[in-house]
Amino acid sequence: MSGRLTVIGLGPGSSALLAPMALSCLVQAGAVVGYDRYMELVDPDLLKGKTLFSSPMKKEMERTAKAVEFALAGLDTVVVSSGDSGIYGMAGLVLEYLEREELLDTVELEVVPGIPALCAAAALLGAPLMHDFASISLSDLLTPLPTIMKRIRCAVEGDFVIALYNPKSRKRDSYLGQALAIATEHRGASTPVGFVRNAYRPDQDVRVATLGTCDPEWADMLTTVIIGNSASRLAGKKILTPRGYFEKYG
Amino acid sequence: MSGRLTVIGLGPGSSALLAPMALSCLVQAGAVVGYDRYMELVDPDLLKGKTLFSSPMKKEMERTAKAVEFALAGLDTVVVSSGDSGIYGMAGLVLEYLEREELLDTVELEVVPGIPALCAAAALLGAPLMHDFASISLSDLLTPLPTIMKRIRCAVEGDFVIALYNPKSRKRDSYLGQALAIATEHRGASTPVGFVRNAYRPDQDVRVATLGTCDPEWADMLTTVIIGNSASRLAGKKILTPRGYFEKYG
Repeated sequence: MSGRLTVIGLGPGSSALLAPMALSCLVQAGAVVGYDRYMELVDPDLLKGKTLFSSPMKKEMERTAKAVEFALAGLDTVVVSSGDSGIYGMAGLVLEYLEREELLDTVELEVVPGIPALCAAAALLGAPLMHDFASISLSDLLTPLPTIMKRIRCAVEGDFVIALYNPKSRKRDSYLGQALAIATEHRGASTPVGFVRNAYRPDQDVRVATLGTCDPEWADMLTTVIIGNSASRLAGKKILTPRGYFEKYG
Repeated sequence: MSGRLTVIGLGPGSSALLAPMALSCLVQAGAVVGYDRYMELVDPDLLKGKTLFSSPMKKEMERTAKAVEFALAGLDTVVVSSGDSGIYGMAGLVLEYLEREELLDTVELEVVPGIPALCAAAALLGAPLMHDFASISLSDLLTPLPTIMKRIRCAVEGDFVIALYNPKSRKRDSYLGQALAIATEHRGASTPVGFVRNAYRPDQDVRVATLGTCDPEWADMLTTVIIGNSASRLAGKKILTPRGYFEKYG
C-alpha cells in the first residue's frame, strides 16, 4: 500500500507565508524530499525524525525518483518547492515521472498551492501586476534561447506586464540585458521595473527603477524582475499598474 | 496619526490556504473592508468587535475611500481581496487612491501576498502552468475587448500556457468561446483545458477536458480556465505541461 505523495510550495520562504495546508502536510509527513537550498527554508523541528532526501540543483530527476520510492514504500511523502510548486517547481516533473512509470493509478499525487515568487515580488514593489501579465523564465537549461526571446517579444507586443524568473546565472549573463532592451525599445525608458531578491527572507533586497535607470547587474538567480506595461508608473517609491477605475468611475 | 493600511489576499478562501501573515493582519485589525462576497470568506470570529465596511461588486472606489478614511482616523485597517490582492485585486486601486489624494507619505501601504486563483486552479488540475504562462482577464469593464483579444492572440503566438480570469458574466456570454476558438485554431483540438470553479471551497468543481471537448458553458464568473500550451497533455485525469527534463536528462 503506497503512501500519499504531495508536492507543496513553501511560498517565499518565511514561515509567515507558509499556508496551513502545506504546514500540515509537513507535520504529517514520514519523508520529505527537496532541493538542498529549499530544505533549509523548512523549520528544522518539522524535519526531526523523518526520512529526508535532499540534493543540489539539476538533480531534480533523482529527487523525484526518491520521492516516488518513499511513497511506494508506504511513507507519506512531501516534495518541497519554494514559491508555488506548480510554477517552475516540482509538480510537473513528479506527475510526468508517475506517468512514465505507469504509476498514476498506484500513487495518488496531490499538489498544494503556495504563494509564488511573482506575487511576493509584486507585493513588495506595490501593485505592478494589476493588469494582464506574462511569466517568463530566462533559464535556457530546458528551453531554447530563441523561444525565450520570442516570448519576450510576444509579451511586449501584447502589452503584458512581464515577470521574469531565473533572470541570470553564472553561465547566462546577457539574457536579462537583452530582455530589458526589447522592453525598452517598445515601452520607453521611463517604464518602471522592479528587482526583488530573496523576498521575505532576512537578506531581502527590493529595488524600484525604470528601464532607463536600472542595471541588469542588480539581478542574480534568486531575483524576480517585474517590468511594467505601457500604463505602469511610479507612485512614490512603488510601482503601480492602474486598471482604469479612475478613468471610468473617478 | 494614521493607522496601518494593509491590503491582503485571502487565497482561494479556505482558511487552510490563508497565510499566517494575512491572518495576523486580520487579528490585529481595527477595521476590515471588502467586497461583500469576500468578507463572507473570513472567519466571523475574526471580524467580531471591529469596524466593518463591505459593499457589492463595482463599488471598489467606495471601499477604497472608506479604508483610507479608517486608516486616517487611526484604525489599523485591512482591505481583503480573494486570491492575491496584487492580481486583479485591490492593491492597485488603493495605491492609486493614495497617490491621487497625495497621501503616499501620510498613510503607509503594505501589501501582503496570497495564493492566487491561477495557482489554486493549477494545483487542482495537476501541473498545467509548469512552463511560461500568461494571465488574462476576459472582463471588459475596464479593458476594451479588442485589447483582450489581441492579448489572447499574442499569448497563443508566444505558446504561453494561458490562465483566464473572469471568463464569463451575464453580460459577457461569448468572450470565452472566442478565446477558446483562437486557441483551438493554433494549438489543435486535443490541447488540454481545465475549468476550476470555487477552488478549495465547499462547492469546488474541477473539470479537465480538451479544447475539442470542453463547453464554455462550464464557466461562470467564479471559474478560472487554464489552456495548455503546444506541449501540454493529459496525464491520467490531470493536465501536464512538461518542462523537458526527460528529453534532456531522462
